[in-house]
Amino acid sequence: MSLLAVGSVAYDAIETPYGKRDRTLGGACTYIALSASYFTEVQLVAVVGEDFADEDRALLSGRGLDLRGLETVPGKTFFWSGVYSADMNERTTLQTDLNVFAEFQPKLPIDYKETPYLLLGNIQPELQKSVHGQMNHLRFAGGDTMNYWIQDFRRQLLETIAGWDFLLINDSEARMLANEYNLLRAASKILDMGPSTLVIKRGEYGAMLFRRDTLFMVPGYLLEEVFDPTGAGDCFAGGFVGYLAECGFDLKNGHIDVKDLHRAVIYGSVMGSFCCEQFGVDRFRSLTRKDIDQRFEDFRRFTAF
Amino acid sequence: MSLLAVGSVAYDAIETPYGKRDRTLGGACTYIALSASYFTEVQLVAVVGEDFADEDRALLSGRGLDLRGLETVPGKTFFWSGVYSADMNERTTLQTDLNVFAEFQPKLPIDYKETPYLLLGNIQPELQKSVHGQMNHLRFAGGDTMNYWIQDFRRQLLETIAGWDFLLINDSEARMLANEYNLLRAASKILDMGPSTLVIKRGEYGAMLFRRDTLFMVPGYLLEEVFDPTGAGDCFAGGFVGYLAECGFDLKNGHIDVKDLHRAVIYGSVMGSFCCEQFGVDRFRSLTRKDIDQRFEDFRRFTAF
Repeated sequence: MSLLAVGSVAYDAIETPYGKRDRTLGGACTYIALSASYFTEVQLVAVVGEDFADEDRALLSGRGLDLRGLETVPGKTFFWSGVYSADMNERTTLQTDLNVFAEFQPKLPIDYKETPYLLLGNIQPELQKSVHGQMNHLRFAGGDTMNYWIQDFRRQLLETIAGWDFLLINDSEARMLANEYNLLRAASKILDMGPSTLVIKRGEYGAMLFRRDTLFMVPGYLLEEVFDPTGAGDCFAGGFVGYLAECGFDLKNGHIDVKDLHRAVIYGSVMGSFCCEQFGVDRFRSLTRKDIDQRFEDFRRFTAF
Repeated sequence: MSLLAVGSVAYDAIETPYGKRDRTLGGACTYIALSASYFTEVQLVAVVGEDFADEDRALLSGRGLDLRGLETVPGKTFFWSGVYSADMNERTTLQTDLNVFAEFQPKLPIDYKETPYLLLGNIQPELQKSVHGQMNHLRFAGGDTMNYWIQDFRRQLLETIAGWDFLLINDSEARMLANEYNLLRAASKILDMGPSTLVIKRGEYGAMLFRRDTLFMVPGYLLEEVFDPTGAGDCFAGGFVGYLAECGFDLKNGHIDVKDLHRAVIYGSVMGSFCCEQFGVDRFRSLTRKDIDQRFEDFRRFTAF
């Protein structure tokens, strides 16, 4: 069943110890949608400028994405550039040009409002709330956020996530949101804020899922080469929700199997790991569902006892 | 089948965000032996001074440890003091008084030389090698080391671990030993140095086991309160080898089940997690094998998909 992904589509300039790209397709919504496209139909709501290249549009439509919600407006596409530390664990932003993204007002084609799964990328909480409020038949809805919104837009963010079924953030964001260093206690406080499902991503260290009825943890997949971690968290999100959409997971009507949630965390981890294997979105030019399912089985092999 | 543990027995002064102890029983060999005692008979080879308290000796013998190898010599017992950062991820050493440990020459009661399992705590590599060389019927032998030996005694350390079946170190030590940041590649280089089994501990992030025939990963156990992480790595080691001794794991004669190794990593993780729940060795005053097996099942529940 289909998934609506909302967020940024961008051009990135990236430098890692393995190399450099001056301008490559990026943005949270791009990664989410590409990743989720291996599991389910995906609709995309985002904005780009007139410089958005035909070949990038072709990559997205080649993965079967519904691009009716990808608005093109006068101006330039969101541009971000950053450089990673030698161990890839730190990243410094060199430049952020919001360009057309500064005025982004998500516009939903009318039939998108019937979509059952909603994944809101990291954008202004009030925009996330506005999209959520327009949806008519959600089965499972939620999204991502970041330190900036947690610190400076706390009230708006809390109002927004109060209505979500799930929240997907990294460990430092969880600690900041809960004002609590210990992750078990932080998770408990966040579950009190609204979302019944919390996924905490820990980069190379894996991920954890918290609910009142289950706790699940998975270590990170070990890669021989991490070329570029950009987008890995968004690919995790796309795999996580994409897989649940494929399963027909239905929180609203109580058709819930917690094992589906556990497997969704594994698929999220699988997608995040593939993302790091090449620059930008390049891994998605060749990745197949068979590759994905093989790595899912690798996770089983590496963690069974 | 019995396990020989060699290393330091010490007094520690510890400060964590949860409190402070001015003088509490510690030392790698202490933690290893207490932890392993839940799985198998343990012999201890270490040295203490005349200040070593009867109540501490009673704690060790109360866990059934064979203390004939615990030598008492004139002088004071090894003393260490340290303070942990607010997030417990960093520790600053305030004072190290080697005292009688400076002249430690492990002396093995003759029947210890027939012991099949050997776990060498973090001491001078040449002492580790000397003990290893005296053992007659080993089934599985190895140990721990630290950055100091890796940097300043590299040749001696490499000669020592060349003869080991397993090496148990943390991730930063593995990177330093292999001169390689990527852990998969670092592990491969370390397996070329001699040990056929490498366990890399990652503190709160879990642990990994590397062999040519298997790779196993486990996330860290989430605790609501980490009172004091001192000794957690040594407790991991004691649980890991202790469980294999209980199984009768026999590398020398090829009686190997890799699933036993995976489960040993879980038992190691279980013991490391319990260690953090109270100051120093205090958790071992009340811990039961039933608690341990329950947490083992928790790990299964938290990681199954």
